[in-house]
Amino acid sequence: MSVIKPDIKYLFEPRSVAVIGVSQEPGKIGYKILENMVEVGYQGKIYAVNPKGGQALGFDFLKRVEDIDGEVDVAVIAIPARFVYDTVVACAKKKIPILTIISSGFSEVGNLEEEQRVVNYAKAHNMRILGPNIFGHYSSKVSLNATFGPRDITPGNVAIITQSGALGIAMIGKTAVQNIGLSSIISVGNKTDINESDLLEYLVEQDETKIILMYVEGIQEGERLVSVLKKATRKKPVIVIKSGRSKRGAVAAASHTGSLAGSDKVFDAIMKQCGVLRAESIQEALEWSKYLSHTPVPQGPNTIIITNGGGVGVMATDACEKYDIKLYDDQEKLKETFESVAHGFGSTKNPVDITGEASKADYLKALKEALADDDIQSVIALYCETAMMNSQELTEMIDEMYGQYQAKQKPITFSVFGGEKTEAAISALHRKNVPVYRDVYDGVSCLGALHFIRIAQQIESSIPAVSEIDVERINQIIDQALGDGRTFLLAEEGQSLLSACQIPGPKGGVVQSVRAAVKLATEIGFPVVMKVVSRDILHKSDAGGVLLNLDNEEEVIDGYQAIIHSCKANVPDAVIDGIEVVEQIQAGTEVILGGRRDASFGPTLMFGLGGIYVEVMKDVAFRAVPLSENDIRAMIKEIRSYPLLLGVRGELRKDIDTIVTTLEIVSTLITSVPRITDIEINPMVVYEQGQGARAVDIRVIISDDKEDLK
Amino acid sequence: MSVIKPDIKYLFEPRSVAVIGVSQEPGKIGYKILENMVEVGYQGKIYAVNPKGGQALGFDFLKRVEDIDGEVDVAVIAIPARFVYDTVVACAKKKIPILTIISSGFSEVGNLEEEQRVVNYAKAHNMRILGPNIFGHYSSKVSLNATFGPRDITPGNVAIITQSGALGIAMIGKTAVQNIGLSSIISVGNKTDINESDLLEYLVEQDETKIILMYVEGIQEGERLVSVLKKATRKKPVIVIKSGRSKRGAVAAASHTGSLAGSDKVFDAIMKQCGVLRAESIQEALEWSKYLSHTPVPQGPNTIIITNGGGVGVMATDACEKYDIKLYDDQEKLKETFESVAHGFGSTKNPVDITGEASKADYLKALKEALADDDIQSVIALYCETAMMNSQELTEMIDEMYGQYQAKQKPITFSVFGGEKTEAAISALHRKNVPVYRDVYDGVSCLGALHFIRIAQQIESSIPAVSEIDVERINQIIDQALGDGRTFLLAEEGQSLLSACQIPGPKGGVVQSVRAAVKLATEIGFPVVMKVVSRDILHKSDAGGVLLNLDNEEEVIDGYQAIIHSCKANVPDAVIDGIEVVEQIQAGTEVILGGRRDASFGPTLMFGLGGIYVEVMKDVAFRAVPLSENDIRAMIKEIRSYPLLLGVRGELRKDIDTIVTTLEIVSTLITSVPRITDIEINPMVVYEQGQGARAVDIRVIISDDKEDLK
Repeated sequence: MSVIKPDIKYLFEPRSVAVIGVSQEPGKIGYKILENMVEVGYQGKIYAVNPKGGQALGFDFLKRVEDIDGEVDVAVIAIPARFVYDTVVACAKKKIPILTIISSGFSEVGNLEEEQRVVNYAKAHNMRILGPNIFGHYSSKVSLNATFGPRDITPGNVAIITQSGALGIAMIGKTAVQNIGLSSIISVGNKTDINESDLLEYLVEQDETKIILMYVEGIQEGERLVSVLKKATRKKPVIVIKSGRSKRGAVAAASHTGSLAGSDKVFDAIMKQCGVLRAESIQEALEWSKYLSHTPVPQGPNTIIITNGGGVGVMATDACEKYDIKLYDDQEKLKETFESVAHGFGSTKNPVDITGEASKADYLKALKEALADDDIQSVIALYCETAMMNSQELTEMIDEMYGQYQAKQKPITFSVFGGEKTEAAISALHRKNVPVYRDVYDGVSCLGALHFIRIAQQIESSIPAVSEIDVERINQIIDQALGDGRTFLLAEEGQSLLSACQIPGPKGGVVQSVRAAVKLATEIGFPVVMKVVSRDILHKSDAGGVLLNLDNEEEVIDGYQAIIHSCKANVPDAVIDGIEVVEQIQAGTEVILGGRRDASFGPTLMFGLGGIYVEVMKDVAFRAVPLSENDIRAMIKEIRSYPLLLGVRGELRKDIDTIVTTLEIVSTLITSVPRITDIEINPMVVYEQGQGARAVDIRVIISDDKEDLK
Repeated sequence: MSVIKPDIKYLFEPRSVAVIGVSQEPGKIGYKILENMVEVGYQGKIYAVNPKGGQALGFDFLKRVEDIDGEVDVAVIAIPARFVYDTVVACAKKKIPILTIISSGFSEVGNLEEEQRVVNYAKAHNMRILGPNIFGHYSSKVSLNATFGPRDITPGNVAIITQSGALGIAMIGKTAVQNIGLSSIISVGNKTDINESDLLEYLVEQDETKIILMYVEGIQEGERLVSVLKKATRKKPVIVIKSGRSKRGAVAAASHTGSLAGSDKVFDAIMKQCGVLRAESIQEALEWSKYLSHTPVPQGPNTIIITNGGGVGVMATDACEKYDIKLYDDQEKLKETFESVAHGFGSTKNPVDITGEASKADYLKALKEALADDDIQSVIALYCETAMMNSQELTEMIDEMYGQYQAKQKPITFSVFGGEKTEAAISALHRKNVPVYRDVYDGVSCLGALHFIRIAQQIESSIPAVSEIDVERINQIIDQALGDGRTFLLAEEGQSLLSACQIPGPKGGVVQSVRAAVKLATEIGFPVVMKVVSRDILHKSDAGGVLLNLDNEEEVIDGYQAIIHSCKANVPDAVIDGIEVVEQIQAGTEVILGGRRDASFGPTLMFGLGGIYVEVMKDVAFRAVPLSENDIRAMIKEIRSYPLLLGVRGELRKDIDTIVTTLEIVSTLITSVPRITDIEINPMVVYEQGQGARAVDIRVIISDDKEDLK
């Protein structure tokens, strides 16, 4: 049976909605949903279904889904969990493409089985499910409020996707109070079918939506989400709130939802990689949403601060560093532009200080200079209350400048600071939807979000770096290990894997004669290590089968004979297959390279400096795969100890190119050999530039559990 | 002439105030100050002085200070800078103890000379100066608003000291709007005489003041400030806002004020050491002030979160980690206490989830359980808007619980989240001065501040660790170096200094015979290093005068002769005074110990792991001296790489006791030998516990500039 997934757009633009489980009693969820739909003025056709019949809000309830006379795009199901399955069956007969299951009592309380039964049936019958365990959804496009939450939602351009029902309902109220308009709000609940990726794919194309805000507790289909987010953030700002940042918070999150919270550090790194803005608190997310939904993205990084107070100017400077905003620094140009406004004890440096004597006219002049200067791409305007401007002047000045800046597509953020006069101006401006902040950090944080978006939208979709690896040989190695009942590779298998990937390990080979040993050792370069090769000798060192630090031909000759002699003496019956001659690894900079099939995000890459830097200093970088070469280089640069690779204290630069190549190989491996779940090269010793590196040790964890690989 | 400084209390409790430079014109600063004093109802006697005479606000202006008939405690001087000196002379004749100089035009515009002239005269005549370049001061105790800022200041228990006039004036307005009551606000301006320390000494004893909030741009008399702050924070919360956190911000701050901004990292560390709360933004500082001024300090660390939504519960958990709040973790006890309220799908774990079904009664029950439980010392209560409570019920619940918690001296913070219903409750509660927050992070931040205060108030004033050092010998070494025209010590002088302090350097001595060399080497332990001692041989290595790695008696015998032979051959006329036999330093953990006379704070101590940890990872801890042994141990523990000293990867614990002892010595040195401005032992190689350490290299910078040592 070929299944064409019904288009998710029906969720947002249904022509007709059936509410299954309506009620006659006000107070009841089924009543509330119908009431919200009717009162908000849903533009399509509504059907009300209740097995007991009844009537309310001008509807005669139909007793069965089958009784509906006409096509239905969305069925809102608000009945006890135990009746849901049969209703879904009825909906399938009616060929309803999308079901939003309000009902709780499924996986969130441990009833995974029933949820699976419902979703499997729906999938088999080409239906999509939102939920279960949700408060419903809202879509401004067709004036549909199919929730049991608050009725009044201001239509606008912010789309909210929320995994928490309680927070989602509270956010409806909160956005109304803060005058943030919504294009939609979708409660995803248990995400048994429709998840963030499905919704993002639609929302990123929907004209009504300019900003997407997600409250997330756990990730599903992480690999797909990464790919969807990367595309989405090129077009529209995506803001995510994910609690469980702290160790304890992660534990609390896991006990609270069914989904894995994952490592927050990995989550954080991957969101950044995807160009997603991560907010710490709901308040921050809403402030960002509001500002971004009204303000153009700047054309470049250069920002100036204009202030009438030195102290707040310095604070804004601090805030710019915190939120990664580049302050314009061309002193000559700044002097030229602002000389006429920074009179007296002012300053034309950035912050441009127009002093406490600045009047409305002075502000207008300074802000117009900044607006006219194409080298300045965004502006932070600060005001400390003085006797030089009254409420009305302050309001007019900000209102006028905000309008002019909007018209020229140049972002500006105002932070004003004072008593009643200032508060009166703030209220007047907020009524006009002019963003103005009470604290320097709040305003700068919003501008910082905008600059983050500017950079995210510039990221070019780059070609993933893929290396040539001998997949067939690697699969043979894995088959062998799994066949032996192991979920990890032995040291020799690890070495074979390295060689199948062309990752340089210690040079070496096996020889059967003294002459061959000398020849090989000379080729490798001294010093070398020699080890006996024999299935009969398990503990090579104990049997005298290992010699380190062989410095020249004579020592190799003597060593060869010493090993044979010792082994024969210690394990008389041993069959000696040969002697392994291996390069002795020289000291260098130790790094650690990891690939991991993350429970949330699928293939991920990890990099850090070896030993203490990773273990004690926790100095590591993460990324989701695929990655371009540039992405990998950025990842290497991200660690705090990066200067060590560049060479500190008189040392030369290390062979970063070899690290890049090896990370490309690891990312190819973890992507194209799904039975590898974890690979860690630790340490890889890196030498000076051009001198390469040696993978000293490799740990590989494998799995043939097909379920793990989904 | 013996000078008894006039008591700073006259600034806050003057019996009479003269305004010098009053004006008849409304708009003028001199008029505004007199008006504020009259309208606010200053309880003492007012004199108005203007050389031109005139009258306003019911006052006939006196023409000269001499015309004042009666004693004056404070003279407010608001006249052009060039007339200030003569007025100060007149005030001295009148024996006015405190002058607040509003006038600008002094050091802040480069006119340091005139400022010095004024302050020197005042000091010589036993007068104290506030300012110049200030907006004035307010003291609720006598209803004195001697500022040209806003008139309406709500009396209360927060004292504000501000170095920025613009921000100070704006803060007066802001506190009025936010209903934060002030006991005083003092503009310190150029701080030519009265500074934060003077004011803190008074405010910490003043009953009217419960919280002290300081806006600081630069530090003066830092050593005294540290000592004053340490005492102050034991009694009252002190909050500081200091801009210039960022590198660029520090530059902006330096260009904006006359004082040195100092290293922000040092400032931050020392504030923490002093128990001072550092706020990032004005908003945060005001929120903390308001909360702390109303809320009791908790009796212990254990905190619980009570919530009706899982998502916000996890967010609060994250916020608790950010603000260092300890979540109560006794699962059995929690279950016992909250079993009856966390019914259904709730949780008795912390966060205690009473679910979206929770009514007013459920909240009351849960919060009363927490109130009754002595093992719980503070509570975070969260609410997401549901249909289970209306505005009035929410208001009543919070109001009632807040009252009961206040009565039992147990802090509680409410964060509520929702739409209009919730906003109505917030407004009603704010009118009653009940703290309730719109965002989880805001509420938790305030509780975090309270727990910080709890810990600060518990710090026992401990005995500073002082080591025995041979100050006389050290001074001889410094005399010698300064006599040679050097501001640093030579290597040999550094070694002598180490030995005068009993800091273990490499063991060794100078011998004149082979036998003595062998004897000494045997005492030291092999391997040893041998070096020629000769004034005639500058480049010892070039002359063959240095041998490393001498492993046994024979090598010492051969080495001795080899050195003599080489040196005689290379520098034929050299007089050889002997051969130095020194311990060869074995590898260990390298640390760096520094002492520094900080431009702002005087003697400070620095500690970190050597080399890359300091240079690349910037992993260092700072403290102001004096320090107790416990303080020093805490300082060592603070660095991120501390686990390396405990021993990672199978290594044994390092000799931390020796590090402590050596830091004690360095702190004694930098305190008791003021001519040492910088001392850095780098590296000191630390061995395993009980095995001691060796100071390998020491750099010492000295100064005989007496001005530097003030």
